[in-house]
Amino acid sequence: MRVAVLLSGRGSNFQAIHEAIARGELPAQIVCVISNRPDAAGLQRARDYGYAAHAIDHKLFASRAAHETEVLRVLDEARPDFIALAGYMRLLGAEFIARWRNRIVNIHPSLLPAFPGVDAQAQAVAYGVKVSGCTVHLVDEQLDAGPILVQRAVPVHEDDDASTLAARILSQEHAAYVEALRSLATRAWRVEGRRVVFS
Amino acid sequence: MRVAVLLSGRGSNFQAIHEAIARGELPAQIVCVISNRPDAAGLQRARDYGYAAHAIDHKLFASRAAHETEVLRVLDEARPDFIALAGYMRLLGAEFIARWRNRIVNIHPSLLPAFPGVDAQAQAVAYGVKVSGCTVHLVDEQLDAGPILVQRAVPVHEDDDASTLAARILSQEHAAYVEALRSLATRAWRVEGRRVVFS
Repeated sequence: MRVAVLLSGRGSNFQAIHEAIARGELPAQIVCVISNRPDAAGLQRARDYGYAAHAIDHKLFASRAAHETEVLRVLDEARPDFIALAGYMRLLGAEFIARWRNRIVNIHPSLLPAFPGVDAQAQAVAYGVKVSGCTVHLVDEQLDAGPILVQRAVPVHEDDDASTLAARILSQEHAAYVEALRSLATRAWRVEGRRVVFS
Repeated sequence: MRVAVLLSGRGSNFQAIHEAIARGELPAQIVCVISNRPDAAGLQRARDYGYAAHAIDHKLFASRAAHETEVLRVLDEARPDFIALAGYMRLLGAEFIARWRNRIVNIHPSLLPAFPGVDAQAQAVAYGVKVSGCTVHLVDEQLDAGPILVQRAVPVHEDDDASTLAARILSQEHAAYVEALRSLATRAWRVEGRRVVFS
């Protein structure tokens, strides 16, 4: 399974995927790493690991569409089976999503459909939930609403703030992302309605 | 802690509360059981256990308000500290909720705020979540939205339907309801915004 990684920051989920592959726990290869931010720590890490690492700075493009066209061009060259979003802080356009339908994987730090959008951990703390977690899902046109691959729950403690909860969720994100990619790599699956059915 | 139980059916959560008290695991007493359905199995069970059991048949009242007034009258006589809804299939009016503000406890078979309303387990299966659970919360004017006391997560399996998921959640509901009542009975707590804060 060929995986392209898109990231904008440190890319801790990228690192988790890399390490799972290195340990032989995920039958996949990372075929390229793309960042819209040239200074992303994850991009430097990708170079250190020897991956094809592409800085495609969105500030250098006249429009969102022009930037996305370039990202799509690089992806077409890399020929991934799946695109793994690992803290990629750009919304994907409809053309992008249609081109890679059911082939884009994202992770979100809540148990969707609860707390979509930004600051999910702060939303969870403010709401007062006692359980939160993370969701790995296929990306569709709706924000944080595509078919779910994996979810992992974590407790919310009485004295949590967004930061302490985020750290607890993050430790589960890494395992959840690897588990989701492993399922896509090793099992037959299809999308029925909004459900991912493995068989 | 004096607890009144309102139910409409078999009242399995009522039974769980009863058993926890009998085992000495919940420092509380059930001061009355009220059902809007005279034939509810839970009401017969309450009689068998020797509790004050009240059938207040909503069909015998001219209006929702008239029925609720009678329920409130019986509750005022019983002087509970908390009212535990255990499958009570009547919406509570604003007057009822205001009269017993932060003293009405409900359980819902999802991890709220996901899947409020009816058929929560079927909603969860249709959405394709991999984790669901149950929520014990204080009742306010919004449906299934009051401050949360306890949540417990359960896995959703590939081959689940609403019925198999409901059974798995129900087994956690009993423990969650007892845990929530035990916290209310034994710990200092207050409501801050929409959060329940134990101290």
